[in-house]
Amino acid sequence: MAAKNRTWEDKVRKVVPYVAGEQPKDANIIKLNTNENPYPPSEKVREAMEQLAEEADLLRLYPDMDATALVDALAQYLHVDSSRIFVGVGSDDVLALSFMTFFCGGGTLLFPDITYSFYKVWASLYRIPYRTVPLTQDMRIDPAAFKAGPEDGELAGIILPNPNAPTGVEAPQADIEAILQANPACVVIVDEAYVDFGAESALPLLEKYDNLLIVQTFSKSRSMAGLRIGYAVGNEKLIGFLKDVKFSFNSYTLGRPSILMGTASVKDEVYFRETTEKIAKTREWFSGELDRLGFVHPQSRANFVFAKHPAHTGEELLQKLRANGILVRHFAQPGISDYLRITIGRPEQMKEVVRVLEEIL
Amino acid sequence: MAAKNRTWEDKVRKVVPYVAGEQPKDANIIKLNTNENPYPPSEKVREAMEQLAEEADLLRLYPDMDATALVDALAQYLHVDSSRIFVGVGSDDVLALSFMTFFCGGGTLLFPDITYSFYKVWASLYRIPYRTVPLTQDMRIDPAAFKAGPEDGELAGIILPNPNAPTGVEAPQADIEAILQANPACVVIVDEAYVDFGAESALPLLEKYDNLLIVQTFSKSRSMAGLRIGYAVGNEKLIGFLKDVKFSFNSYTLGRPSILMGTASVKDEVYFRETTEKIAKTREWFSGELDRLGFVHPQSRANFVFAKHPAHTGEELLQKLRANGILVRHFAQPGISDYLRITIGRPEQMKEVVRVLEEIL
Repeated sequence: MAAKNRTWEDKVRKVVPYVAGEQPKDANIIKLNTNENPYPPSEKVREAMEQLAEEADLLRLYPDMDATALVDALAQYLHVDSSRIFVGVGSDDVLALSFMTFFCGGGTLLFPDITYSFYKVWASLYRIPYRTVPLTQDMRIDPAAFKAGPEDGELAGIILPNPNAPTGVEAPQADIEAILQANPACVVIVDEAYVDFGAESALPLLEKYDNLLIVQTFSKSRSMAGLRIGYAVGNEKLIGFLKDVKFSFNSYTLGRPSILMGTASVKDEVYFRETTEKIAKTREWFSGELDRLGFVHPQSRANFVFAKHPAHTGEELLQKLRANGILVRHFAQPGISDYLRITIGRPEQMKEVVRVLEEIL
Repeated sequence: MAAKNRTWEDKVRKVVPYVAGEQPKDANIIKLNTNENPYPPSEKVREAMEQLAEEADLLRLYPDMDATALVDALAQYLHVDSSRIFVGVGSDDVLALSFMTFFCGGGTLLFPDITYSFYKVWASLYRIPYRTVPLTQDMRIDPAAFKAGPEDGELAGIILPNPNAPTGVEAPQADIEAILQANPACVVIVDEAYVDFGAESALPLLEKYDNLLIVQTFSKSRSMAGLRIGYAVGNEKLIGFLKDVKFSFNSYTLGRPSILMGTASVKDEVYFRETTEKIAKTREWFSGELDRLGFVHPQSRANFVFAKHPAHTGEELLQKLRANGILVRHFAQPGISDYLRITIGRPEQMKEVVRVLEEIL
């Protein structure tokens, strides 16, 4: 029985929100702190926007609540049936709804101890008990560690990014499959926000594991962070549960601009391949330069590199880079506080980063 | 202790989603079923869209997570401080997050028995116990009935639309204030999705009641259902709690197009007044015609009319209108199943509705 005389404030769900990377107003800053893409979206996206302006009067109508055009384009691109795709307002929206749908049914949620820091925030939002699983010394996922321990009771679910963030390290598909094999009784989410820069997707595993949900985003590889589109792929039944929760939350999440421009982006696969490959190539060059400068970093398969220098603290490098007009991300978290997460920008930007680092060191 | 041997499906949050009004593909249909605005958005919105196309490369960056331009424009329009405003992906998003923030703290949620049917869906999504409060015989809100009964324990919260949907009936401000006076210990949400067509907003009550949250939308009066923008106004502390939950759910909900076009709309107050007044005028004319045809309907202050004919069932009229290319909304719910909710379109559309109704009757 609830206590009497509670105020409205006593009844509020109190939470500590996620803190996103800084968005500076100064356009002269080399902004390598939020893993944005340095290249513009496809020319087809701009054309779709012009079409949108010509049809501005259609904004008065509700958008297609199923985002059919976008879902069908993704289905074709991913070679899966449309019934296996769920779309949302960025992959954070997709993940927030997935936590609500799949992870609130009792038991403990597992995710890596060094990972996307929003997982902890969602778990707290929904009051889901969680346990973090340590990475190996060389910052890899240890698949054997992703199973219920005696302290967990049963598992509420498992979530991990591949490649992991902020490390950039890719788990081989065999490791993802080992986790799925060991955990058929909970949903396993593989967050592939950074998969398009050279890593392998878990998509082929969908045929074998009906509890697998793969989440991807338009924010990084498609240069559309400003539009807010993310999506999930899973078996039809699992996607059906997620849709039921979504349609119990907000019928219309993707507006007309997102549906039109998102569809245009998916249809331009040539540009997508070109830009993601350019970024992967710049990453390889930049990683080599970091080696030359004495940095320590795991091999990245994402659009960022996670690096530390034996002679300098992370905080010190962060401030010195900033003083030189370069913004990178730093996490004041035990074990990684000497690392910087540096987004891969255009080649000339990364050359400038190397030049400034040479000066600092 | 949870039972052992549960499958992943056993752990899923299972819900029955909201069913939105049909969105037909046929452009020749007179679409009066989802309360959309018959007029296009402001010309300033189209201009903002053109600007967006010129700056397409900026889509690669995350949007302003605080939607500052939009929030500031709304603050100026509403004559309140920016700290009192919360924005979201349509008012449904704002309401879904408000339920999560304010109504999950224990006790019973109250809302009218004839009202926006999404309230029941959100309550079920979050497993919030609720009790519906009957309208009076003439479809008004009875303010005295909005208080905890012996069966409720304490109240989790109160939500009601003003004007109510689907009735269109406005509760006088004194009634809203009576509900606030009687219920200081829970948040009271006044859902003003339809307030701009001639009803009075509860905004002046914000100074006196720190537990009042007012929700409005761009989908009806601003002709922007396709863009997905809604907002809430409340005291700074209450808005702060809502923001904490929002930033624990999804950092970036409004994309660059929504922020730019939404801001442009708010700044064109002349067009907004013009179109909302035109719709109110058409409503008054159409209500008179319904009287002439023998329909029974409460006086509407919204952009729709809720009407029944003593000689015909709602289902029958719905089908006959549809056969004549006119789509309206019908709710197969006890007590209102003979009513049709007819959105107010352009004068020529409403004349056609009257002509068809004359034929049918």
